[in-house]
Amino acid sequence: MNPDSIVQPTLLLDPIRCKANIRRMTEKAVSQDFQLRPHFKTHQSHIVGSWFRDEGIDKITVSSVGMASFFAMNGWDDITIAFPVNIRQIAEIKELAQKIKLGLVLVDPDTINILGMECTDEVNIWIKIDVGTHRTGIRPEDNDMIDLMVERIRSFPKLIFNGFLGHAGHSYQGRSVVEVERVHLNSVHMMNDVRNRYMDKFPEIKISLGDTPAASMISRFGGIDEFRPGNFVFYDLQQEEIGSCALNDIAVAMACPVVAVHPDRLQWIIYGGGIHFSKDFQTLKDGRKCFGRWVKPEGNSWTTSETISGPFLLSLSQEHGVVQCNEQTFLLRKPGDISLWLPVHSCMTADAMGGYLSTEGGKIDHYREHLWS
Amino acid sequence: MNPDSIVQPTLLLDPIRCKANIRRMTEKAVSQDFQLRPHFKTHQSHIVGSWFRDEGIDKITVSSVGMASFFAMNGWDDITIAFPVNIRQIAEIKELAQKIKLGLVLVDPDTINILGMECTDEVNIWIKIDVGTHRTGIRPEDNDMIDLMVERIRSFPKLIFNGFLGHAGHSYQGRSVVEVERVHLNSVHMMNDVRNRYMDKFPEIKISLGDTPAASMISRFGGIDEFRPGNFVFYDLQQEEIGSCALNDIAVAMACPVVAVHPDRLQWIIYGGGIHFSKDFQTLKDGRKCFGRWVKPEGNSWTTSETISGPFLLSLSQEHGVVQCNEQTFLLRKPGDISLWLPVHSCMTADAMGGYLSTEGGKIDHYREHLWS
Repeated sequence: MNPDSIVQPTLLLDPIRCKANIRRMTEKAVSQDFQLRPHFKTHQSHIVGSWFRDEGIDKITVSSVGMASFFAMNGWDDITIAFPVNIRQIAEIKELAQKIKLGLVLVDPDTINILGMECTDEVNIWIKIDVGTHRTGIRPEDNDMIDLMVERIRSFPKLIFNGFLGHAGHSYQGRSVVEVERVHLNSVHMMNDVRNRYMDKFPEIKISLGDTPAASMISRFGGIDEFRPGNFVFYDLQQEEIGSCALNDIAVAMACPVVAVHPDRLQWIIYGGGIHFSKDFQTLKDGRKCFGRWVKPEGNSWTTSETISGPFLLSLSQEHGVVQCNEQTFLLRKPGDISLWLPVHSCMTADAMGGYLSTEGGKIDHYREHLWS
Repeated sequence: MNPDSIVQPTLLLDPIRCKANIRRMTEKAVSQDFQLRPHFKTHQSHIVGSWFRDEGIDKITVSSVGMASFFAMNGWDDITIAFPVNIRQIAEIKELAQKIKLGLVLVDPDTINILGMECTDEVNIWIKIDVGTHRTGIRPEDNDMIDLMVERIRSFPKLIFNGFLGHAGHSYQGRSVVEVERVHLNSVHMMNDVRNRYMDKFPEIKISLGDTPAASMISRFGGIDEFRPGNFVFYDLQQEEIGSCALNDIAVAMACPVVAVHPDRLQWIIYGGGIHFSKDFQTLKDGRKCFGRWVKPEGNSWTTSETISGPFLLSLSQEHGVVQCNEQTFLLRKPGDISLWLPVHSCMTADAMGGYLSTEGGKIDHYREHLWS
């Protein structure tokens, strides 16, 4: 990768860091004996997917029907769509079920009926349990609803009851191994309580959980069958704040031209805004927002050795980024130079950018979900 | 437009509302005798651009070199790129300058030298003045810097000094005509003070300002030559909060399938998240965030008659939206139904979606900025 070739905001992907993240997680899955079903919504890339394949991964998670089709086209044949079934996409769902082993997530009993009546090929059904994030899922104590849903699933021959799926998104509030482990163990308990009620009737049912903080920070696992983390493939500043990774593990960085400098405020203006980074931010100790942090080029890639004391992205508008420096760092860049930034939320940045430049050279693909783009 | 045909998050565009917004602004420009140079970064569409053409518009503003090329291809031949010149794109800039009347914005004296030495065709140069937003621009009292920049521009035969350009982005903090007008009049004063210092030498130089709140809310204009508002083509909840428009003027709405309902929390989950809406939000009086507001289908379009008392988007993750209802509104939708939402920041939502569905039927195009998408 030659930084001189970069003329506009570009998302760099460092394959060395990325493959190390993948290998660390696949090794943990083997040693801790859980099925790793990585969530591909973070990278959304056939090339990055092939790096998972190289480590023996053959089951994946995605977040939309379109993304499932994108990976099915590329030879992935065991895919769970970890998003409540959108029954309006039933035609595409049926097409997928003909081709691959398809896992679906259900939270609504009426949707089960439509799905059951429509499906002509087998689909694997997970009931989503709300383990405390309160975004979606059936409350674990709502036995009546879970009974109803299990019975409905069982009443349709093409719906195969797989078990219970949860996402402990509230682990993102944690800031230590102890806090993240508490959320995780609670989730595991809840899920097993639910499963135990059905074990006699359905001894094969499984528990699937998935969040990057628990997958990264906990070293010993038990009571789960499957784990679906996604973000670990790249990590980001949010995960570093939680404690899931070191700054040096973050495998993507935005390259942005500097277009103006303001010595009176010790600020630079970069070409790189909300349409490139997305607008997720961290809140610094002094209350200021941070939309990205500085890294320094080193070889083909970058080093984080001066990240903490370096400039940071104070605000973003559509195309502008305002960078706050101090007296030591202000002179590091001038208009026309390239600056490199770790993103706060790599899934959102990758989706906004829609493609990567490898630090080893060459483009890396990214799925485009939207219609008529 | 048939809502039944919508299966996944889709950005609806109502041409009737949109064309009324365009006409109102073009009529104001005629009656108030300023040059309207609308900012096309909001819609980024050839079709919407043609609606401006129908109202006599032939000069436009964009925010990137790529967007300028996109509109130049479509026959627009007088385009200002209202973003500090990114000198790394000099090759594309030179190509554009061969084809069209190109306006560029400068904030950095060294960039003038490179541009001046490189350009073989005439380009029109605006010096960006910081009228108080403190994002970028030269401070109006920094006579030495402005002198230096004017002299440098004049030293290169292909750089035509056009005048001074500002953007009163801090008008977005206003919540009344009085507040927005105060910001605007201040900006006009500052810009004229700057211009007056150069009028003897350069009697032709102009003042260009551009923000949707001032353009929309102020009825009498003076002291400016050109206005570059963009958002007014669609408006959004942010503009409604400022007072630039009525809810009923907002010309775009997201259509999102409902995928789950949670009666205990009076919440729906929609398929529609940060990758669709973007993550701009309003803060409600009770401190909760709002990422979008409910509208009700009516005919081919929607009505805002029940928007204020209706559900709102409480949070967004990558693909999920959490909708807060109350006891009256919770039963309005069930899983499988389509729900419609006014966006908080239409420029960002349109950019995230990358295309529209007209309420009159048919697709409406949107430029894709990013590389290798």
